[in-house]
Amino acid sequence: MSTAKMNVAELEQFLRREFPQAFSGDDITIDSADGATCLLRQRYSERMLRPGGTISGPTLMALADFAMYVVLLSAIGPVGLAVTTNLNINFLRKGEPGRDVLAAARLLKLGKRLAVGEVSLLSGSAPDPIAHVTATYSIPNK
Amino acid sequence: MSTAKMNVAELEQFLRREFPQAFSGDDITIDSADGATCLLRQRYSERMLRPGGTISGPTLMALADFAMYVVLLSAIGPVGLAVTTNLNINFLRKGEPGRDVLAAARLLKLGKRLAVGEVSLLSGSAPDPIAHVTATYSIPNK
Amino acid sequence: MSTAKMNVAELEQFLRREFPQAFSGDDITIDSADGATCLLRQRYSERMLRPGGTISGPTLMALADFAMYVVLLSAIGPVGLAVTTNLNINFLRKGEPGRDVLAAARLLKLGKRLAVGEVSLLSGSAPDPIAHVTATYSIPNK
Amino acid sequence: MSTAKMNVAELEQFLRREFPQAFSGDDITIDSADGATCLLRQRYSERMLRPGGTISGPTLMALADFAMYVVLLSAIGPVGLAVTTNLNINFLRKGEPGRDVLAAARLLKLGKRLAVGEVSLLSGSAPDPIAHVTATYSIPNK
Repeated sequence: MSTAKMNVAELEQFLRREFPQAFSGDDITIDSADGATCLLRQRYSERMLRPGGTISGPTLMALADFAMYVVLLSAIGPVGLAVTTNLNINFLRKGEPGRDVLAAARLLKLGKRLAVGEVSLLSGSAPDPIAHVTATYSIPNK
Repeated sequence: MSTAKMNVAELEQFLRREFPQAFSGDDITIDSADGATCLLRQRYSERMLRPGGTISGPTLMALADFAMYVVLLSAIGPVGLAVTTNLNINFLRKGEPGRDVLAAARLLKLGKRLAVGEVSLLSGSAPDPIAHVTATYSIPNK
Repeated sequence: MSTAKMNVAELEQFLRREFPQAFSGDDITIDSADGATCLLRQRYSERMLRPGGTISGPTLMALADFAMYVVLLSAIGPVGLAVTTNLNINFLRKGEPGRDVLAAARLLKLGKRLAVGEVSLLSGSAPDPIAHVTATYSIPNK
Repeated sequence: MSTAKMNVAELEQFLRREFPQAFSGDDITIDSADGATCLLRQRYSERMLRPGGTISGPTLMALADFAMYVVLLSAIGPVGLAVTTNLNINFLRKGEPGRDVLAAARLLKLGKRLAVGEVSLLSGSAPDPIAHVTATYSIPNK
């Protein structure tokens, strides 16, 4: 139904150019993006951890926010100025040290001015999400 | 995987007794509930509408909150004192007058003290949700 | 700093005409509205209660949503089509039966397209809020 | 009314020991904490910025989450295992490059199992918040 305006290679090229600090292409990779969903993978690093050895909240919030931006870009094409207006996160379980963190994002609504989506954050291949996010992006006028 | 502690008939009986004002069994019905998900249906009524002929926000919030309670009951059995601690709703599209409103709830986490779930609110058989809710319930000590 | 575009009498007249089902002027009254804040009062009624004798969640959500609309109207003047896009509520304490419920709303941001505010819900004259809401309204183009 | 269980010096000592990666004491300082509110300051750094020169969302989310933890510690004393269960952020305005970011946190509820608070994020001495957060922490059994 949905058709991606940018494929994975185009997304990575755009993000490397526009968001070099968030997306060096080394620790985060885009596994898929199709205009309605996307799947991101953040390679495990000790910097992700908080005391007690669990994945830190800011790591999960940042990855979810980024996944929402990637699925939005795949839906509407290169728009540098879309900004998050609201993000709500529920922390559900501890992520396991040593495992990559995956973010599976899905658009719930793509309007002219606002896009809303949800993101499930996963610890490696474990089925139950470690956190769940809903977020809203404001889309600038053309 | 999950096993319901209460089936639909038991849920309806419990809710009619404990929540007569919210659940008279007339306008809201439980289509299914299995310990991990549930589907509720609220029969269309003009009282649902706000000006402009769209389904009102409070109608959707109340139905979503109730659906979360039903799926929780189906998972843990009759617990009258579980209370909502947080509810976040994103309004996505206008619901159409004349159509029933459906609430499809799913548990994201069932802990000892907290349960978190998400609810998609649907306008009749239209596939795109008119609103999306995440909610947290606090479960009393036994 | 802020100047109200509509005073309390103008707000009540507008709301009675446009939202007769939500605002008959009987159970909800506007104590004040100044373009940046407003205070609403909902007269106690048994219909507000859920089992256990506490104020129901939907009552609080509906009043908070309405308070956000009132403070927005007081800030921008009569705009029938502003709609809630997001509402997040934290339930904090039980409201006492027999007491009016008050909603103290405050705009956090008034942009061209979006307005964001917060609402404290109070049980009579008790100082600690029974619930806290943040909400976003989308403002239509003129 | 409220009495702090830990003063600023005790908080800084505890945080340096338990959360060395989040709180080296260099870029974030605790200006005040009194058991009901706290004020944190994060020194401006270019690492805070996202493209376009605004303060990044993850920077604000991380600081707000940390401020909630600090005000909670000041209220209940040293509890390493309190964890965030929900965080909701509304992004309101762009923060200005070159200015410190301040986080003013306030407890809305301190229960036995859950604490709820709100955080205003400020750009230097500008009065209007650049973001607003509500967050819930789960407090472990003693």
